[in-house]
This record gives sequence, structure tokens and C-alpha cells, in this order.
Amino acid sequence: MKSSSLPVFPIERLLSFSTRILSFYGVPEPEARQAAGILGAADLRGIDSHGIARLFMYAAQLKDGRVNPTPHPFIVHETNTTATVDGDNGLGLVVGPFAHQLAMQKAREHGSGWVSVCHSHHFGIAGYYPMDALRHDMIGLAMTNASRIVAPLWSAEAMLGTNPIAIAFPGHEEPPIVIDMATSVVPYGKIEIADRKEEQIPSGWAIDTDGASTNMPRAMMHGGALLPLGSTREMGGHKGYALAAMVDILCCVLSGANWGPYAPAFAPETSEMNESVGKGLGHFFGAWDIAGFMEPILFKKMIDRWIRVFRASRPAAGTDGPLIPGDPERQAHLHRQTHGIPLHPRVYQSLLTLADEAGLPPPEPLDYSE
Amino acid sequence: MKSSSLPVFPIERLLSFSTRILSFYGVPEPEARQAAGILGAADLRGIDSHGIARLFMYAAQLKDGRVNPTPHPFIVHETNTTATVDGDNGLGLVVGPFAHQLAMQKAREHGSGWVSVCHSHHFGIAGYYPMDALRHDMIGLAMTNASRIVAPLWSAEAMLGTNPIAIAFPGHEEPPIVIDMATSVVPYGKIEIADRKEEQIPSGWAIDTDGASTNMPRAMMHGGALLPLGSTREMGGHKGYALAAMVDILCCVLSGANWGPYAPAFAPETSEMNESVGKGLGHFFGAWDIAGFMEPILFKKMIDRWIRVFRASRPAAGTDGPLIPGDPERQAHLHRQTHGIPLHPRVYQSLLTLADEAGLPPPEPLDYSE
Repeated sequence: MKSSSLPVFPIERLLSFSTRILSFYGVPEPEARQAAGILGAADLRGIDSHGIARLFMYAAQLKDGRVNPTPHPFIVHETNTTATVDGDNGLGLVVGPFAHQLAMQKAREHGSGWVSVCHSHHFGIAGYYPMDALRHDMIGLAMTNASRIVAPLWSAEAMLGTNPIAIAFPGHEEPPIVIDMATSVVPYGKIEIADRKEEQIPSGWAIDTDGASTNMPRAMMHGGALLPLGSTREMGGHKGYALAAMVDILCCVLSGANWGPYAPAFAPETSEMNESVGKGLGHFFGAWDIAGFMEPILFKKMIDRWIRVFRASRPAAGTDGPLIPGDPERQAHLHRQTHGIPLHPRVYQSLLTLADEAGLPPPEPLDYSE
Repeated sequence: MKSSSLPVFPIERLLSFSTRILSFYGVPEPEARQAAGILGAADLRGIDSHGIARLFMYAAQLKDGRVNPTPHPFIVHETNTTATVDGDNGLGLVVGPFAHQLAMQKAREHGSGWVSVCHSHHFGIAGYYPMDALRHDMIGLAMTNASRIVAPLWSAEAMLGTNPIAIAFPGHEEPPIVIDMATSVVPYGKIEIADRKEEQIPSGWAIDTDGASTNMPRAMMHGGALLPLGSTREMGGHKGYALAAMVDILCCVLSGANWGPYAPAFAPETSEMNESVGKGLGHFFGAWDIAGFMEPILFKKMIDRWIRVFRASRPAAGTDGPLIPGDPERQAHLHRQTHGIPLHPRVYQSLLTLADEAGLPPPEPLDYSE
């Protein structure tokens, strides 16, 4: 995983740098530290697209005033177990934890808690939240919408984000099952990588501007769209579309955020919709107290058994057998915690630029002799 | 939709026949009527595999004592908003409505309600339950496990059921958005149809007994398995597997039902697992009171707008444009409510056999001159 061509950083240096940059742009220190922790969780788990690679964009949003560095998220409406939260235009990395904590508090008191959030921004990896819920013997659920890049089946237009769904289940002796999946076939990053390598993409990943299947990364990038999980009607593309729609509605219609094609773009220059149908991006958080259904220890022991039975199933020809959801990310975590996090030169360059602008020392890569 | 080669039945005749058959095998009249209604909803919506075509199997389960005709489902454990229910080995068509009602009652009182169910059997189409929740201004969720027929990505063994997820959202002037999707690429019925027609199946639907991709229906049917939504690693098969695992755990591990490969088979002769890890099949029901988040009328009007914006998106080349989830089933419903329900000759024959065994008149098909 460690490539000699990439600079490698201990997680602590990245966390500290992200915290200081966010603080520099006005985010109070505790929130900045929390936000940095969510970015760091992505880098540790090998989800490079959602980690410190995004710090430059978050900083830009703070710098030009599109995001409020000191939000006071507030409850618009609530019952014992449900709430709508207005994120006060804050970083999703700050608003997300607020809403997730509220869902868990309701679950602690009443068995389950559900919070739909508007007026927020990108909240990091969805899996961060259900992994946090595990520490409280809860099953957490997190979803978010995102800028439009995915076409509904049979549409030629990007109308939905990659709208991820994340949920996690604790084991007792076994590590947890962690599901964190975009509802598109692939993330946009895979198209960019193919483009950089000047490679074709498989049929079923994307469409061009006419909605026709394409193997050319550029055809997707210039007015095309990603396809939803399942890709075509024959292979179940209507199901991936339905899942993305479900996420969109629970996160945005239920909270009063901008749904579907109206979701604000991450970068302002890529924004096209002049209209708004709500406030900011939307998220949806849930938590079930396991004790509301059965004794947590019995649940965890049965999850252990589930994991062992599935791991032991006969491998398909040419494979090492099935994984348990979350395996690859956990392996990345174990490796990167010890050996550090490799950053793409462009990402490292973006950190140097940020450091320069803020007058702060940049994170130091490991000496290769270390 | 109406084919002159198939006998066609008004829905009322099928409902009445199903009710009488279930009553004959000991199901009390109100429960028999409710169960028949769930089967009829499938037939009306064009989901032929889950309608009266299954009556023969339900009757067989009642006849040989595998299913309790007069169950008293009971709450094993509960909080304000969560419960575990033991279905007392009843028909899923009876236990399902009990648990779904309990979830809605909790939602009415506390904003949301969640019920995990063990010791049940097949509960009909998952979409029936969230469609019922619409009438109460609630967003309903239903999931169930089922006999193993789907392989995890990279496994050669069927370890999971087609484990559907259903959820529905009400419109104001527009019809509701209804999502009801198996987490496999296709249902088993599509393999059977290809086999009957002696046609090949597309790559990505199924694997043979070695876990290798196959185009031969028989190779899947004799020891192979269906693939999860996404099919291959490259096309997101790990995501369909993760969704099926989520359904399995929420329905079965959380309730104490038989998860994964231990799920009881519909027909006893196809059962292989001698071991049991819990009681019966499992379901999971949820309900959110829309008023727990926002005014239902505002939500419904925004859903109208969502539907109209998505319908108006530019069609992909060679298509009529995107559908809204639930469109095809609603169109089938409109047609079949007026013109009747066509039954495959084998299904009609099974009804004649049931009628004969019970000494009851079979349902009369429409005269073709009608």
C-alpha cells in the first residue's frame, strides 16, 4: 500500500494540520478538532477522496463565506424520537456530529432516534457516524445527498448525488460489520483516475450527454453522468436509482434541504442551478439502541457467528472467498495507522498552499529512512 | 397485458377464493381475509410470483402443520419505539400486519416505531406494508429475509435470500413513490422463465456451483446461486451483498430468527440445513410519522414537485425517459383492477387442485366475451 513515490504522513500530523487550518478560518478549536478527526477517519480507512484531500475545498468554502465557521445548529421541530435540524449553514463535519448525537440521545431515552438535517454541507464519510454509534451499543444509520452527478435509469441528466448509505453492526470478538456504500456504480474518482491513465471505463459505469453508454471518461466528465448501482434495466439499474431517490427524500424533502438536481455544488464554479428548493445539503441520521430489541451481548455474539459462517463459505472460482463488509477499510486502517498515510502529490501540494496562505508550517512527510 | 391464451380473473373472485381456502385450513376468517388481501395486492400490482400463485404453498404449510393457523404473536421485549415480536409460527401474512401495526402505533405515540420479528413465514410483497402506512401519513419501511438463493460476492454458495427492502413516500396530487426491491440482481422467477423458454441468461445474473459466471439457467438451478445487485466487484456486487446482509441482520439477528443460510426453505423438500440458529423467518418493520419532521401537507407537496422534476428530466437515448419508482406496478394495478388478473395455466391448475381438496368451488375465469 505504501508506494515509495508518494509522500507518507503519520495520521497525527494530518489531524493537527487540518485542525489548525480550520481554526485559522474561524472554526472554534473543539469543532475544528472534531472535523479533522472525521477527515482523518477517511484517510485511515483508505477512502482518500473524502479525507484531507478535501481540506482545500472546505477551507475555500469558509474563506469565501459560503460556509458559516461558527454555526449554531438548531432543532426546527421534534418529537420523542424524531427531529428536523437546521445546520445554520455550518460545515457538515460540525453539523453532522450534532445531529448524530441528537439521534443517539433520543435512542438512549426511547429506543430509537431519527434526525433529518437541512442547511448543511459535506459531512465526510457516512461510515464515520455508525462507527461512532457502535461505541454506545447502538446501530447507527447515516445518509447524505450530494451534488448531482448520477442519472436516474433512462434519464440523460445527472439528477442525484452519489447519495451514500452507511450502517454498522457490532461484533463481540469479531470486528464490526461496517457498510458504507454510494448508491452509484462507482464514485466519480474512478472516472478521473481512468482519465488520468488514459484508460477506457467499463460499460455500465457512465453515460454521455445523450444518455448513451460510454467507455470514454471524458464523455462522462463533459456533460454525462454516472449510472446508479445496477447500471441497466436488465441488471437492476432501477434499484440503484430507487435507493438514491430514497436517500434524497429522507435527507432533503423531509428536512427542507435542496433535493436532487438542486443540491449545491461543492465548488461554486460547477454550480448550474440558479433555483433553490430548500436550504443547503441534507443528511439523515438514525440510531437504534440494541437493548431496545435484545441483550446487546447476545446480539454481538450472534454477529460473531454470522461473520464466521459467511467467512467460511466456499470461495467462488478464482477468488479468496467472500469478505465481510468493512474488511478492506479495516485492513487499510491497520496498515496506515502504523505505516502512515500516502498522499497524492496534488493533495500534498494543496496542503502546502493552505499552509502558505495561513502562515502555518505544513505537515512533514516521513523520512523514507524512518 | 391481457393475453388471450391465459385465463383472466376479477380480483374479487381471487380474494374470495384465497380467503375460503385459508379458512378451510384453519385460519380465522378476519386473518384469512387480510392474508388474501396481501396476496391480491401482489396480483393487482403485477408481481405474479408473490400473489395467488403462492396460495398452494401456503396451504401446504398449513396442512402439514409447519405453520400455525391460529398464532398469537407476542411482544418479547419493547421500549417506547422498538420491539421484538415472536410470530408464534404463524403465516407471515398474519404476523406481518401485526408487527407493522405495532410499529405504526409506536410512531403515532413517539414519532417512530421499529419492530423486528422472528418465528414467522413468508409475508407477501414487502411493498404492501409501506403502502398501508401511507394512509396514516407515515413513511413505512419493510424488509424480510427468505430462503437462501443469493451468493455473497466472491462466494460460490447461496447464503442469503433475495431480502427485499420496501419504502414509500406519499404525494399530494401525484401518486406515491413506492420502492419495493429485492437486493439480488433478479428474482429466481426470471431464471425459471428463461429455462422454460430454453433461453440463455445474461452474464451477471447468476453463478454455477463453482461460483463461476454462467449463462445457463440450469447451471444456476442445480447448485448455483443468484448474484447480488451489482453482480461483480467492478460493477458494485459488494454493495448488493452488503444490502442483503443489512436486511438479514435487522430481520433475523436482531429478532432471534434464522439468518443467512439457516433461513427455512419455503418447501420442505428443498431444505438442506439441519441446524437452526433461531426461530423461523425474520422481518423488520419501521414507521416514521411525517408530522414528526414537518407538516405532512408540505412534505406531500414537495414530493409532487420532486416527482414532476424527475419525470421531466431529459430521456436517455432510445428510452421514454425515467420512471418514478412504483410506476410500472401502479399501471399494472390500474389495468388489472378493470380487466382482471391473468393467471398462468399452472397456477390456475393449482387453484383447481386446492378447490378439489377443500371441496370448494374454484374461481371462475372471465368469459372471453365479457
